Amino acid sequence: MNVSRVDFAELTPQPIAYLGQAAYLQLAIFETLTRAVATAPTTEAKEALSRAAGLSLVKHQALSAEIAKKGKDSGEVMAPYAERIDSYTRVTAGADWYETLVTSYVTSGMLDDFYRSLASGLPADIAARVAGIFSGADGHDLIVGELRNAIAANPRLASRLAMWGRRLVGDTLLIARSALSEQSRPDEARLEPVFTELIAAHTRRMDALGLTA
Amino acid sequence: MNVSRVDFAELTPQPIAYLGQAAYLQLAIFETLTRAVATAPTTEAKEALSRAAGLSLVKHQALSAEIAKKGKDSGEVMAPYAERIDSYTRVTAGADWYETLVTSYVTSGMLDDFYRSLASGLPADIAARVAGIFSGADGHDLIVGELRNAIAANPRLASRLAMWGRRLVGDTLLIARSALSEQSRPDEARLEPVFTELIAAHTRRMDALGLTA
Repeated sequence: MNVSRVDFAELTPQPIAYLGQAAYLQLAIFETLTRAVATAPTTEAKEALSRAAGLSLVKHQALSAEIAKKGKDSGEVMAPYAERIDSYTRVTAGADWYETLVTSYVTSGMLDDFYRSLASGLPADIAARVAGIFSGADGHDLIVGELRNAIAANPRLASRLAMWGRRLVGDTLLIARSALSEQSRPDEARLEPVFTELIAAHTRRMDALGLTA
Repeated sequence: MNVSRVDFAELTPQPIAYLGQAAYLQLAIFETLTRAVATAPTTEAKEALSRAAGLSLVKHQALSAEIAKKGKDSGEVMAPYAERIDSYTRVTAGADWYETLVTSYVTSGMLDDFYRSLASGLPADIAARVAGIFSGADGHDLIVGELRNAIAANPRLASRLAMWGRRLVGDTLLIARSALSEQSRPDEARLEPVFTELIAAHTRRMDALGLTA
């Protein structure tokens, strides 16, 4: 994501707040993927999604390790964000396996982009390492493969999933916005280019499914 | 587990059948743990259980890798066992978070013991490696910690969870039995010492929770 137009340093919250929110969000993405594992229609799909879930868990654990390096307990540091993120997870759960897959793909894509960009505002000792966590393997190829097969087998899925993808954007932008430092929130104009970039990347992701964003 | 009295070589199914069942069972144990992650009452518990779930996933992936080394697709190899194991997972799901935790602990304990013992009957080139997979970290210390805290905070849980632990044994022995090679199944007398060992280890596991087996 090209973020040269925005100074993320001013938007990034304090490191512990950043890490706590980011770690809990990865746990939430992991949970959504495990729901997709549990309801997968074939053992092949179950296998592929369990690998994708494992990659989210790796990110969560890497972020938790950063919290531990700061001498904090990750459970405690994540706790203040749990209620809001749990409610986001419920709202974006999806009505069936296909919607849940789209949720995993769309929300983890947008949120990983967002947190990777915000990482540039972290102190130098952790900024590169944290950006690296969000650049790790994401399992999206596995999810895209499953969704493309499903849409090919049942073309009527396309319009429903395109609609669902659009619905996810609003809730995901809200959760991203709520992660920014308190001071920068009122300044909507400064946030505009960030969100424009996030939506452009979202459009490319929907394209990869053969769906209109 | 002391298995010197039984010749496991004769009980072990063909390597591909063994690996397919074992890999799918680890995926099932992972699923049960992810249900416990999703319903965990605190972020600390969620964090601990996600680590335990990750360890099951590591075992699953190591078994899948063994299947791939044999030139087979793990999804296909697991498929014949999915229905029976899914039904086992449903029956042992548990009514709430505490029962689900006991399920993860009790069933993964018994099944890991069982598959580790059976591994001695596999061809020499994979036997040690597969036994090593089942000797890997199991996250039981994390689960035992959560359950002991819960029982201390609410002593009435103890009898309900002790009862649930007993119920799990029968279904788990059945699923273990169904994994044995067809030829050895009729010979119940030969299986008796295997199951006696499994139950003895189960009793030690319930002791660790402060519960009567």
